[in-house]
Amino acid sequence: MANLTSERCVACRPDSPKVTAKEIAELSPQIPDWQIVEKDNIPRLERVFRFKDFPSSIDFAVKVGRIAEEEGHHPALLVEWGRCTVSWWTHKIKSLHRNDFIMAAKTDRLYSM
Amino acid sequence: MANLTSERCVACRPDSPKVTAKEIAELSPQIPDWQIVEKDNIPRLERVFRFKDFPSSIDFAVKVGRIAEEEGHHPALLVEWGRCTVSWWTHKIKSLHRNDFIMAAKTDRLYSM
Repeated sequence: MANLTSERCVACRPDSPKVTAKEIAELSPQIPDWQIVEKDNIPRLERVFRFKDFPSSIDFAVKVGRIAEEEGHHPALLVEWGRCTVSWWTHKIKSLHRNDFIMAAKTDRLYSM
Repeated sequence: MANLTSERCVACRPDSPKVTAKEIAELSPQIPDWQIVEKDNIPRLERVFRFKDFPSSIDFAVKVGRIAEEEGHHPALLVEWGRCTVSWWTHKIKSLHRNDFIMAAKTDRLYSM
């Protein structure tokens, strides 16, 4: 199975394919700490990352922001004291795209560095 | 009337005073772009700041994080493409303290710099 962290995001259009249930089942084991959370009827991949203080949470958000810019795909980052909640979804298709799983895997890799 | 941006946050304890309705009426004109939003039964001061892209939103969050550390009082920062939603409230009293109005005013000043 392809390693998500080695993939790059593709450009998305409103008719780009949503991930199928089969793909979700196939990809989820690579990002076991992420949950699919519905918000405003849109599924998102979400994970809470824990830190020792506020600056560490902000530093992590900055790093995630950098890979987001590199890939041209942007998350929502909720920074609070001791935690950063990262949410990935694809605005153009109002759903989850393979790109979101790629970015979730890359976010995990950043956290483990 | 005292200028909020010239004040410093005071240390808070669980029995520290919540702002009164009179104080809210007195202080709100200094932060006219903030709304009081209830979440989990806790009132927060909240404002959405707009930016031209994702890195600008992150940069603003970093600046807000710096003044938060200086004052020892920390917000929730929701960073998204083109906007940063800042929320101030006082965890220890599960409500709004004068500190939150001070930090809201300082956040406005950062945005105008």
